[in-house]
Amino acid sequence: MKVLVTGAGGFIGDHLVRLLLAEGRIGGRPIDTLVALDHRLQQNDGVLAIEGDLASRAVHQRIAELAPDLCFHLAAVPGGAAEADPLLSRRVNLDATLDLFQTLAGRAPGGRPPVVVYASTIAVYGSALPDPVTPTTPLRPPMVYGAHKLACEILLADFTRRGLLDGRALRLPGIVARPRAPSGLASAFMSELMHALAAGEPFTCPVGPEATAWWMSARRCAQNLVHAAGMEVAGPDAATAGRAWPLPVLRLSIAQVVRTLAQVHGVEGERLVRYAPQPAVEAVFGRYPALDDRAARALGLRDDGTPQALVRRALEPDFRDPDAAAPAWA
Amino acid sequence: MKVLVTGAGGFIGDHLVRLLLAEGRIGGRPIDTLVALDHRLQQNDGVLAIEGDLASRAVHQRIAELAPDLCFHLAAVPGGAAEADPLLSRRVNLDATLDLFQTLAGRAPGGRPPVVVYASTIAVYGSALPDPVTPTTPLRPPMVYGAHKLACEILLADFTRRGLLDGRALRLPGIVARPRAPSGLASAFMSELMHALAAGEPFTCPVGPEATAWWMSARRCAQNLVHAAGMEVAGPDAATAGRAWPLPVLRLSIAQVVRTLAQVHGVEGERLVRYAPQPAVEAVFGRYPALDDRAARALGLRDDGTPQALVRRALEPDFRDPDAAAPAWA
Repeated sequence: MKVLVTGAGGFIGDHLVRLLLAEGRIGGRPIDTLVALDHRLQQNDGVLAIEGDLASRAVHQRIAELAPDLCFHLAAVPGGAAEADPLLSRRVNLDATLDLFQTLAGRAPGGRPPVVVYASTIAVYGSALPDPVTPTTPLRPPMVYGAHKLACEILLADFTRRGLLDGRALRLPGIVARPRAPSGLASAFMSELMHALAAGEPFTCPVGPEATAWWMSARRCAQNLVHAAGMEVAGPDAATAGRAWPLPVLRLSIAQVVRTLAQVHGVEGERLVRYAPQPAVEAVFGRYPALDDRAARALGLRDDGTPQALVRRALEPDFRDPDAAAPAWA
Repeated sequence: MKVLVTGAGGFIGDHLVRLLLAEGRIGGRPIDTLVALDHRLQQNDGVLAIEGDLASRAVHQRIAELAPDLCFHLAAVPGGAAEADPLLSRRVNLDATLDLFQTLAGRAPGGRPPVVVYASTIAVYGSALPDPVTPTTPLRPPMVYGAHKLACEILLADFTRRGLLDGRALRLPGIVARPRAPSGLASAFMSELMHALAAGEPFTCPVGPEATAWWMSARRCAQNLVHAAGMEVAGPDAATAGRAWPLPVLRLSIAQVVRTLAQVHGVEGERLVRYAPQPAVEAVFGRYPALDDRAARALGLRDDGTPQALVRRALEPDFRDPDAAAPAWA
């Protein structure tokens, strides 16, 4: 099968491409062609690179010629950057994404519709959430990023209903640990906390110790994306059943993460962290209640298991994943 | 105040423009300039006409110069036509609508954000609905029309959250009685039934007598649109509270409407109607359950009151509305 990864040069895209190369197959079908798309890409054996803008006509022409069987769509302007430039968010996170869906849907008719695994976000839910968040919780995105992602979820479900695509939108929680560089993500502090404490460095936290968030390691996220591509979901009546799921999460307070980091890395976590809560950050990123993620778990999607596994998987590139060979990921 | 009506040449737009001309004010503020926009427009004293395509740059330039205080956005490719041409629906119902929001939001900063009353649709809900439909019913549009309308609801709420617009999306039910001409609406049979029976003509109904739908007269709809422009809604935290409401409706079966038409027009309704239910039409337009519309009623939005009032208001241009002078519409 031919597989396209957009945003392949990004943090999650990089993890995903390496996982696809290592596994070589998805849901039992071998990957014949693996295509990476991004503005800039590292050379990678076994990967066909397309460098360019997702909003450009030339890139869409290349994608149309390629006619992928499967697309992981990760490319996006992240939350903080989108809020700072809503028109850029519209161009990339909405317009170019819908154009991509249209291009992918334009394959010669008759065969199976291409599978699209779409990286949506828990930012579709909103702030002041009920406890627990359930599949019927009204979706009221508190940032333009979440609003554009939600619009794309809805239209991916519509392409699926029309039989043109086979869409699976996953709502990604806070993914850790991103590189220590400006990412444009408003939730970047979650990763920075991990890097700082693992290095025994002090950290000023923009939310308090009781702030709760939904966490996942990048490696587990990549595994979930691959699993989503092959999982069996409801068929032609998919619009009724829905085609978007929150990923199962570990819901942890900052204090729990600090304790776990202290334990795993042998540092004095409580002494390294100074809390300087910012109400605006805390309102959006520090009030995540319990999540009813049973529908996603029933499909075989999973969290990191334990806070210890989350922290180790997030920070240690060679941490041997005890679940790596589990049959659920075959 | 300066008021813009898009889709002013359409069925609901025509009712709305005539109501605005008759009342001359909205929420106590006089209308200084009333601008009608559509592809083609009738000459109308007191109305400044802009003929053109909402997707054209020239029209947006005109709107930007005008800088309306209030926009009723009714222009749309209707449901059946949208399903037949999803790319046209995207261009008008999504792209041009979001461009309009952006143009309206571009007014000189500092003043009150322009009010946008957006004609959304009950097609955002989906088929196989729970009974009753409530504010937490998951939204799963069964047609591309509803999907695009829902995306615009979400983004209008986001413009509102950002303080750039003051959005109020109303989900319109089946509005009657449209003219007896091809409208591109999949629900056109609701109007055709009324015209046929009022004229004593036979009618073949694509849903059975027990099929239930949500009904409203065009005149009541126009009154609700005007009311929505002036009503007090939650402020800056509007994204949390939501900025979309279903209009209160009369939920009536086809048999009830036939009986009412027979009574009001003195015809033998049961003998004139032949039922030839089409499962696809019945699934989307014949299974509307009860609607929990208390939030909309609390804001002063209203249904037609009785089936008799609905039928008379829908078909008789000079029917004197007993509610016309009620203070709620002042």
